[in-house]
Amino acid sequence: MAVWTQINNAQLDEFLTNYNLGRVLAFKGIAEGVENSNYFLQATSGNYILTLYEKRVAEKDLPFFLGLMNHLASQGLDVATPIKGNDGKFYGHIDQRAVAVISFLTGRWQNQPSLRHCELLGTALAQLHLAAASFEGKRTNEMGIIYWDKLLKNCAGAAAEFLLELQSEIAYLKKMWAAVPTDLPRGIIHGDCFPDNVLFAGERASIIDFYFACEDWLAYDLAICLNAWCWQDGWNKAKAAVLLAGYEKQRKLSLAEKTALPLLCRGAAIRFLLTRTADKLQFDKNLNLSAVLPKNPAEYAAILRFHQSSGAIL
Amino acid sequence: MAVWTQINNAQLDEFLTNYNLGRVLAFKGIAEGVENSNYFLQATSGNYILTLYEKRVAEKDLPFFLGLMNHLASQGLDVATPIKGNDGKFYGHIDQRAVAVISFLTGRWQNQPSLRHCELLGTALAQLHLAAASFEGKRTNEMGIIYWDKLLKNCAGAAAEFLLELQSEIAYLKKMWAAVPTDLPRGIIHGDCFPDNVLFAGERASIIDFYFACEDWLAYDLAICLNAWCWQDGWNKAKAAVLLAGYEKQRKLSLAEKTALPLLCRGAAIRFLLTRTADKLQFDKNLNLSAVLPKNPAEYAAILRFHQSSGAIL
Repeated sequence: MAVWTQINNAQLDEFLTNYNLGRVLAFKGIAEGVENSNYFLQATSGNYILTLYEKRVAEKDLPFFLGLMNHLASQGLDVATPIKGNDGKFYGHIDQRAVAVISFLTGRWQNQPSLRHCELLGTALAQLHLAAASFEGKRTNEMGIIYWDKLLKNCAGAAAEFLLELQSEIAYLKKMWAAVPTDLPRGIIHGDCFPDNVLFAGERASIIDFYFACEDWLAYDLAICLNAWCWQDGWNKAKAAVLLAGYEKQRKLSLAEKTALPLLCRGAAIRFLLTRTADKLQFDKNLNLSAVLPKNPAEYAAILRFHQSSGAIL
Repeated sequence: MAVWTQINNAQLDEFLTNYNLGRVLAFKGIAEGVENSNYFLQATSGNYILTLYEKRVAEKDLPFFLGLMNHLASQGLDVATPIKGNDGKFYGHIDQRAVAVISFLTGRWQNQPSLRHCELLGTALAQLHLAAASFEGKRTNEMGIIYWDKLLKNCAGAAAEFLLELQSEIAYLKKMWAAVPTDLPRGIIHGDCFPDNVLFAGERASIIDFYFACEDWLAYDLAICLNAWCWQDGWNKAKAAVLLAGYEKQRKLSLAEKTALPLLCRGAAIRFLLTRTADKLQFDKNLNLSAVLPKNPAEYAAILRFHQSSGAIL
């Protein structure tokens, strides 16, 4: 995690007076997640994840994120569900920081996803897109193309040549983006569906961590997943094929979506290259705030180059 | 934790073929513990802690530590118990690192222990001393007085004046230590019984993390606890009194032990001042290896000064 906040017993006990979870049996910080401080909470009523939101998640967005998770669970999806406090709210505060209690999902994320995992993820993503269609919340994609120039400013300090390359790539993508058919299906996307955000238990794939969810093209979410799941020292076409096939079991892609996918993959590559580069620079400048090494930007530079030169994702 | 080792699914699954824990439901790294990498492991047979030993715990010592834990559990103490693999051993290896599976204890450690917590801890420590008397393992106290000169060498880099002070304190304590009656009761001590190593669940106090356990004066273990539990911006005589009373519910202290306690507290103070100072210097030099701030040496400098000037622990 980038930052870690300790919660002491008195703080926890006071916070939990607003919930009916029973007696606390165990409470341990989890050494995972790069955005928030997560705790494993075992109570007499069951197991939970307690999440304290760090600075990257704005409190104003929590009703959207937690409302979405609740909506998806109500639609029958195997997702983590926020637990309402006795005040009817999905989150409260500890020391002025927003804190939510989320149901605990069993399962493990796959650091080396198989073809079958990619297929299951594709299906789960399509189910998410369909189930989210009836959710009324709205949120702009703050990591979307109109914000890339801003994200590029956070990369000041990187090599000048690299910055120029990013700048010209953004300019190119803006031009191409403008040519994408305006009726490309839009909806709520997850926006960060990397392997560490999907818990597998047998054939069940549960998507977690909705803290980048927003409105955008549905096919752009798929492009994020293709980059995140199908790259392993090179592009794995077999994985891309089963991921798309898994997706289309639930939701057919239009011809326009399929045509746009290589471009959207290229855009998804620069979006993560921008944030990883900025995170790495921040980490190198300010070591003592960081507990876990930031994700490697080099991987996304390679993915971007693949999409620039090939475009053949299948 | 000072160091953190990731265990991937393939490594875990292969390791667990040597155990009969059932199917893995969840596996999450725990953001606690300064010595080892700990994981929460939920399996169909129950909950466990999986511990991967980092460099501070020597593999040669594991049969002692894990054998002791097993012995204490067999004596009816509420301690975490190592689980034997099908090969009859208490630990195996992942990527050439020693790894053990330990039973999961419910309960929470107290960052602000009450008088009652201090009393319960005293009783639990005495029970540990009594139950360990029938354990056959042997281990020298590698943090004991004969090693303090060596520990002082790890503090090179601290202020010269401070180092001189430590040096003269060690010389004084060696002289005083030699005058302690040779028949002071010896046995197996925990050696690191700080509040974060005791899990309370109602009236149950379970001591965990036996990775400094060794042979020494039993009263020295009590001195370590007195410093760790009774200091809060000053010495709390009420806490010291109930801690000792709790201890004597199970094991009466001899007059020689009571007389030696102030000196032993002074020794226990410098032992932790030495290691915390060395850890802090190491952390400041080498930030990127460290995930969590080392414990503050200043607290133990204050505790040492109290024992140097007062000696009145009750």
